[in-house]
Amino acid sequence: MIIGLVRQTPLLPRERGKNRGEAIMNLTEIRNAIDQVDRQVLALLRRRMEYVLQAEKHKTDVQDLAREQSILDNVTAHCSPLLDKAFLLRLYQSILAESKELQRKHLKLVGFGGEHGSWAEMAVQRFGHGMVPIPCADFQDVFSCVANHELEYGVVPVENSLEGSVAEVSDLLVEADLKIVAEAVIPVHHHLLAVPGVELQELRSVYSHPQALGQCRAFLACNKLEPHPFYNTAGAARWLAHEQQRSVGVIASRLAAELYGLEVIKENIEDHPENATRFVFLSTHTTTEPANKCTIAFSTEHRVGALSDVLRIFAENNINLTRIESRPIRTKPGTFAFLLDLQGDSEDPIVLQALKAAEKAAVTFKNLGFYPEAPTPKDGVC
Amino acid sequence: MIIGLVRQTPLLPRERGKNRGEAIMNLTEIRNAIDQVDRQVLALLRRRMEYVLQAEKHKTDVQDLAREQSILDNVTAHCSPLLDKAFLLRLYQSILAESKELQRKHLKLVGFGGEHGSWAEMAVQRFGHGMVPIPCADFQDVFSCVANHELEYGVVPVENSLEGSVAEVSDLLVEADLKIVAEAVIPVHHHLLAVPGVELQELRSVYSHPQALGQCRAFLACNKLEPHPFYNTAGAARWLAHEQQRSVGVIASRLAAELYGLEVIKENIEDHPENATRFVFLSTHTTTEPANKCTIAFSTEHRVGALSDVLRIFAENNINLTRIESRPIRTKPGTFAFLLDLQGDSEDPIVLQALKAAEKAAVTFKNLGFYPEAPTPKDGVC
Repeated sequence: MIIGLVRQTPLLPRERGKNRGEAIMNLTEIRNAIDQVDRQVLALLRRRMEYVLQAEKHKTDVQDLAREQSILDNVTAHCSPLLDKAFLLRLYQSILAESKELQRKHLKLVGFGGEHGSWAEMAVQRFGHGMVPIPCADFQDVFSCVANHELEYGVVPVENSLEGSVAEVSDLLVEADLKIVAEAVIPVHHHLLAVPGVELQELRSVYSHPQALGQCRAFLACNKLEPHPFYNTAGAARWLAHEQQRSVGVIASRLAAELYGLEVIKENIEDHPENATRFVFLSTHTTTEPANKCTIAFSTEHRVGALSDVLRIFAENNINLTRIESRPIRTKPGTFAFLLDLQGDSEDPIVLQALKAAEKAAVTFKNLGFYPEAPTPKDGVC
Repeated sequence: MIIGLVRQTPLLPRERGKNRGEAIMNLTEIRNAIDQVDRQVLALLRRRMEYVLQAEKHKTDVQDLAREQSILDNVTAHCSPLLDKAFLLRLYQSILAESKELQRKHLKLVGFGGEHGSWAEMAVQRFGHGMVPIPCADFQDVFSCVANHELEYGVVPVENSLEGSVAEVSDLLVEADLKIVAEAVIPVHHHLLAVPGVELQELRSVYSHPQALGQCRAFLACNKLEPHPFYNTAGAARWLAHEQQRSVGVIASRLAAELYGLEVIKENIEDHPENATRFVFLSTHTTTEPANKCTIAFSTEHRVGALSDVLRIFAENNINLTRIESRPIRTKPGTFAFLLDLQGDSEDPIVLQALKAAEKAAVTFKNLGFYPEAPTPKDGVC
């Protein structure tokens, strides 16, 4: 019934790295397999807690006895000679108690687009203590969840020092009705990760996001490693941890290595070390903290000098601009919106007056908020 | 950094079935996602217990304080705002205590080739209580693990009523030094499984082992479902449970549906209902139970009538043969071995004498053991 075909899906851990005939696992191999199971259990428990915190937003009361009983029933229905019913009950009663404990803490959830171990998650760590990074499907998801109060904050990349602006985020910033409450500049250092124990010479190919592959081109060429594009860096690390292929490396962060049980076998393999990504934190409300930077989005009439009229206001008031970007307005083809970052204190009357004047000169105008300017990144952080 | 590419790996549960713009999960969706996480946690815990039982075979003492501490250290190193250190400690102390409890029970492990939810696992359930099915990479792995006392028993399919003998198993039976201690005939009923809530009309394609697809050809054609070969039936169910694709069904057993949280949307879709697979149970020792069937493996001289000489011995003693198969001997090209099943009581002197005479007439001869003949399958079991 079950012979003769090449397997098409990832093999189970115990089946991996074994050739026909060497069937027996020694104690070390079994223990490594158990450690890998434990890493997966922890990742699932974390994901479970993330869902639990999201569920809390929909509930009037943390306690829901019917739901708890239904979970315990589902779980104990899977009891077997290896999973004793009383053991499963004890285990899940403990998990449910901890879940309620967490829900009562009212932690701040910060959505990011991507997977655990991404650069955005490192930005969340910079943002503040007690912040819980929640992976979202994409940037749109981040914006929607914040707007709908599913998440307290969102974090999205706005520009990278080598690659420039993130167009999709610019469009969402223009369109959404959210405020920027903080920013973080994260130095990007690319590391080569592999399955523990693997040497550089064993690798044949490397998986990562195309930008990461591109930024490490010299290293890959020099080591004759074939680049394979993957949808993101942390996702590639998660995939490799699952597949345990000894001939494959991934380019990702140190955080991804720690999370997925991979080993950094070569540090800082990027061609240009001065690589950094700027992230902004989104909320439905402006920050009340002291703030010295501001982002505005506006559109002007479609005539010569219209943009210049607005920019002149800031120049005349000696207000420094740090970034300007034009984006075609997706809902009104042929028209353009401008995103503009400026340095200015939120309580400085000159700045406030200049913004008022700009609003008058523009057709549409939106102040995305004042927030504290991020310090230039110190090296060696990631 | 992380935009613009189509994802290449399975998406996370929360990302699935969602189009751009519908970012928000409602409480029901979140709870479904939590239930799915719980199913995965339980599958991992079971796998962990399987490893734990295998590890016991390598240890002189169940208790190993250094290893326990190392597991707790590994686990608590992953603590985070969502996974409290004290909570993880409590959880894993409970898991370790239960593991030791299990190891002390000295359960009987039965290896099978494939994945949980396979027909072989259903045969294990038939074999006896307190038997723990352990998935092995392949049939060779099953034989090796039993021979090396990693597992008490192994179970392998020897023949299917529609497809005939399993050649690989025949070869392993001839070559290995193992005994057959029991057999089981399992009726094979193919069911169509899908993600819960999916209707037959939504399905476009069906994944399963080529034999299962072949045995359901009429049903698939009639419903315009495109068949996709997969390495085994239970593996296809596990894969679909992970992918949660609404347009895909799998052909597998009811046990697979229960294990992987899928729904049986159409029962008994096989073209020929009289489908059954015979499995044998392997051990290093013969059974002491009353036995009325015997399997032998022998080779004869390469001359006309050599096989007939052996068979005549059984005919003259009125011993009924239920199966004979010739296999080229892999280690000696050009020569053949014969596998022969006969009905005969292990204490019947006529049978024992006939076997002695056969051994004399053969060049090589091996008695794989007497065992109780399995009853003809009653319908509706699977």
